[in-house]
Amino acid sequence: MLRHQIRRLIIGSPLPSAEAAEKRLDKIRALAALSPDALASVAYANQEIFLGLAVAGAAGLAYSWAIALVITGLLAILTLSYSQTIQAYPAGGGSYTVARENLGETIGLVAAAALLIDYVLNAAVSLTAGVEALASAFPSLWPYRTGLSLTLLVLITLVNLRGMQETGTVMALPVYFFLITYLGMIAYGIVVALVEGPGSLQAHAPPAFETITLVLLLRTFAAGATALTGVEAISNAVPVFKPPESRHARQTMMAMAVLMGVLFLGTIGLIRFLAITTGAEETILSALSRRLFGSGIVYYLVQMATLGVLIVAANTSFTGFPRVTSIMAHDSFVPRQLKMLGDRLVFSNGIILLSSLAGFLIVVFRGDSHHLIPLFAVGAFLAFSLSQTGMVAHWIHERGPHWRVHAAINGVGAVATSAALVIIGSSKFTHGAWIVMLLIPLFVFGFRRIRAHYEEVAEELTLAGQSLSFVIDSPPRIVVPVAGVHRGVVEALQYARSISPQVTAVYIEIDPDSAANMEEKWRQYGLYDLAPLVILTSPYRSFIGPFLAYLDQMDAEGGDGQLASVVIPEFVPAKWWHNSLHNQTAWLLKITLLYRRYRLGKSRAIIDVPFHLRH
Amino acid sequence: MLRHQIRRLIIGSPLPSAEAAEKRLDKIRALAALSPDALASVAYANQEIFLGLAVAGAAGLAYSWAIALVITGLLAILTLSYSQTIQAYPAGGGSYTVARENLGETIGLVAAAALLIDYVLNAAVSLTAGVEALASAFPSLWPYRTGLSLTLLVLITLVNLRGMQETGTVMALPVYFFLITYLGMIAYGIVVALVEGPGSLQAHAPPAFETITLVLLLRTFAAGATALTGVEAISNAVPVFKPPESRHARQTMMAMAVLMGVLFLGTIGLIRFLAITTGAEETILSALSRRLFGSGIVYYLVQMATLGVLIVAANTSFTGFPRVTSIMAHDSFVPRQLKMLGDRLVFSNGIILLSSLAGFLIVVFRGDSHHLIPLFAVGAFLAFSLSQTGMVAHWIHERGPHWRVHAAINGVGAVATSAALVIIGSSKFTHGAWIVMLLIPLFVFGFRRIRAHYEEVAEELTLAGQSLSFVIDSPPRIVVPVAGVHRGVVEALQYARSISPQVTAVYIEIDPDSAANMEEKWRQYGLYDLAPLVILTSPYRSFIGPFLAYLDQMDAEGGDGQLASVVIPEFVPAKWWHNSLHNQTAWLLKITLLYRRYRLGKSRAIIDVPFHLRH
Repeated sequence: MLRHQIRRLIIGSPLPSAEAAEKRLDKIRALAALSPDALASVAYANQEIFLGLAVAGAAGLAYSWAIALVITGLLAILTLSYSQTIQAYPAGGGSYTVARENLGETIGLVAAAALLIDYVLNAAVSLTAGVEALASAFPSLWPYRTGLSLTLLVLITLVNLRGMQETGTVMALPVYFFLITYLGMIAYGIVVALVEGPGSLQAHAPPAFETITLVLLLRTFAAGATALTGVEAISNAVPVFKPPESRHARQTMMAMAVLMGVLFLGTIGLIRFLAITTGAEETILSALSRRLFGSGIVYYLVQMATLGVLIVAANTSFTGFPRVTSIMAHDSFVPRQLKMLGDRLVFSNGIILLSSLAGFLIVVFRGDSHHLIPLFAVGAFLAFSLSQTGMVAHWIHERGPHWRVHAAINGVGAVATSAALVIIGSSKFTHGAWIVMLLIPLFVFGFRRIRAHYEEVAEELTLAGQSLSFVIDSPPRIVVPVAGVHRGVVEALQYARSISPQVTAVYIEIDPDSAANMEEKWRQYGLYDLAPLVILTSPYRSFIGPFLAYLDQMDAEGGDGQLASVVIPEFVPAKWWHNSLHNQTAWLLKITLLYRRYRLGKSRAIIDVPFHLRH
Repeated sequence: MLRHQIRRLIIGSPLPSAEAAEKRLDKIRALAALSPDALASVAYANQEIFLGLAVAGAAGLAYSWAIALVITGLLAILTLSYSQTIQAYPAGGGSYTVARENLGETIGLVAAAALLIDYVLNAAVSLTAGVEALASAFPSLWPYRTGLSLTLLVLITLVNLRGMQETGTVMALPVYFFLITYLGMIAYGIVVALVEGPGSLQAHAPPAFETITLVLLLRTFAAGATALTGVEAISNAVPVFKPPESRHARQTMMAMAVLMGVLFLGTIGLIRFLAITTGAEETILSALSRRLFGSGIVYYLVQMATLGVLIVAANTSFTGFPRVTSIMAHDSFVPRQLKMLGDRLVFSNGIILLSSLAGFLIVVFRGDSHHLIPLFAVGAFLAFSLSQTGMVAHWIHERGPHWRVHAAINGVGAVATSAALVIIGSSKFTHGAWIVMLLIPLFVFGFRRIRAHYEEVAEELTLAGQSLSFVIDSPPRIVVPVAGVHRGVVEALQYARSISPQVTAVYIEIDPDSAANMEEKWRQYGLYDLAPLVILTSPYRSFIGPFLAYLDQMDAEGGDGQLASVVIPEFVPAKWWHNSLHNQTAWLLKITLLYRRYRLGKSRAIIDVPFHLRH
């Protein structure tokens, strides 16, 4: 009962299935729930562009604006492309659905693997980047980033296990706080820039360790392209919108793209114009904010807003990941448990799986977002390009009105994202992209194996095509292992006799010379009326071995091909820790019998007769 | 099968019970197996005396010889006392048996608690001190002491799980190597001392931080008294000797005491005479050896010998601890599992318990023997003084020939060890002795609670005084939960019908609208011939809750006070990892039913009908 109360306090009361349809989001809440991944990318993408160019000193940093423009151009292309996807696929499902329907199952699975990896990385990167924003403001927290990230992860997991509508409400506040703060900062920054004029990169930039090369610029572009991760979130989640779902989803996507562009170009423009740089234990956005507002209250508000939106960004994964795994579970590509709605009408198993994987990454990469980024971009752009290519195939196949225009728009998207993917994959290969490239085929292999397993099991279990005739067998022979003479044994014997006349009790003599005493008691209490007692010796003091041998012998002698059933008298202690005071032989025997296989697929029934101790 | 092969490789083949009597030790092997705890104490006792006196500089270190003489006097008293114990208690059992028989159960349990704590600490202290000897020779290992101690612990555990005779053989070599090396070093040291004359403590001693006080000397004595730990080991283990057990045990004990005295006085005398001191990352014995032999091969041999004997000393606990817990398990004071001989005729559970506890201490105290020592001495001397006091009571009670002499000898032992106990307990209280003083009453409380539990259970289970009359009940009503229509369900239904005519299948509708399909299939395959199908709705998508409610309702409607049995169709996957692909509902249901209690102590039988998947 206490367990249930605690669960209820943390997760909330269970919701009946009938409420499922009502848990839809309006546009304001949907923007809060689905766009923060995309919006918050501004934080780590800015940081990556700075880190990528700073190694080439002032000359390198001068390229930041150009790179930002290219990425914003990609954003525009992607937004148009995904608007078309929303229109064509109002049921949602994103890259996996689109690639699978149009490019075949294997490509679909590749997209799914990429997407799942991407969701996990988004959660890990957003949380670690959020904690970095916090630790920029409070440098004494810098050494505790891993622990702080994990704490936030647990909190988000709990919020999500409570369910979607409440999630939307909780998340709306920090998203709009972030937008107001950042748009305000950009506006104020433009005024400052106009008043003060451009800063000098030569005066502030760190010394150059490398010269500017095309490779360096491409590498920086690859890292900065993480600004675009999350753009697809809305197209995956069309069904969570209130009707008309498609239209609401497209409008929300447009609003999101415009906001992203303003935030990204605004911040990176100010950083470039004011020639802002930073050291190893502060983020570049923190440095921008400090430059504009000093170290006062406004600065801390900006950092809190950054942390807040990144937490909500991590939350995007908690909406998307369980949804994709649930769709895949319907197709039998991942374990079936991921298909089930939990108590609160959320996919609890998917949420817990995501949380575990993200926690693992945070620990392994020691809470450092910079080391997670190379893994992140590959998955995202692989999913983008497969989805766009799939859309092209979709339009060609459908040939509806204006199909050439539609195909052309998605074609541009496919080419642009594929080009970006090649750049990212090659320039970040040794920095961690290889891990994702290795994992994706492994995942696809795993998905197929899982489905093959389910198909084999279904084949094995099916009754289709069998003509069934039911003969009621006579009751089975029953064997009751006994360790002494007591009430639990008597109850088990009586139960055994109630279901079958052929009952045998078996005693394994482990303490030498205990058999005589056993037989004496059996006689004394008249137990021979219930069942004969067979004594087995056990020279090696093992219980299970001689007992199994006896069962096999009885089966062989039975002659009717039936396996004897086993009735196990089992103590159930009054308190769980009392289990440590009793031999776990009953449990061990049950497990052994359950997993033991017999010829011809026969099975031996295991009958547990519990005896509940009062003490 | 593979599991068995690995087990056999590591632990060895099982031995039949008939071999138990043959696994006895001759004196040479027994000295190796039982005395190293006592012999090896030289290493850490020396170290503790040095650390205790060094804080008072040269003036403090001058007292080492006097303290060593007092401790050696105590050794002589203890040896005489314990020889009498061996004579009076040829069945062994040591402090616990002696105190319990002569001073009552509670004091016996106090002695037992002290002894068990002591065994654990001996294992932890010996291993950490051994690793410190190793790290003195190879300073680069100093930071890895915890890991090295744990590694050695695992190795010793495995050796002991293989069994006693082999343990004796493995252990004899390092013990005799240690004796030869150390006796040789002392002889060579005496020659050096005679040639070179005394060293100057003033010239070598570290600066004094404290002045010499009685408290400082008593504290040092308390720490140095750990030299005597392990003296009782032989008296606990008389039955492992070859017959005549008592005589062999006493002879071995005398030999051990003489060797201990020579080693202790020899090393501490040389250290004092040659005025040897050391720093923070080297033991004092290492410094002695380095002073005599330089840093050549002989020095390394001495350090290896020290490590070797300390490892074997830790092993003493592996002989004693499981033996004491086994004796206590016979008296129902500790869990019964500790009573059982394992595959290889050793008390495997006791060995594993000891190893876990020692490993815990090594981790908590970060592999530092100096911090473990204050806990160590209290338990040892508490056990000593209770045992000696018990012996006095024994002689007074028996009044055999020369009983006054016997009582007087043990009386001196009792007074001396009690005085030492008071000194140790008070001077080391804040350094960790309080932990043991707190644990001992908790253990005694725990021992009593465990016995009370066993007694209550026996009371509850006993058939004594009951007049039994057996009426064979009619077969129980049976409920079969079904999740679909497939071969596993059909087998379960057929089994249920073979043992009872009253069978009901129950389907819980979790996916809305699946019930109609279920009923259709039930009809299609003619399953209504086997059992009616009851459909239950579950608005909260829970399976267990509605099912239990249905069972309760059926029991209430039955009217005969009997509880319906449950037949569970359970898939058994072909590979263990396939479990992750299937809902664990069958397992969850079994656990829930097993622990569910009913009025009047009735029980509901749980019948598992396994269906083994081929894939």
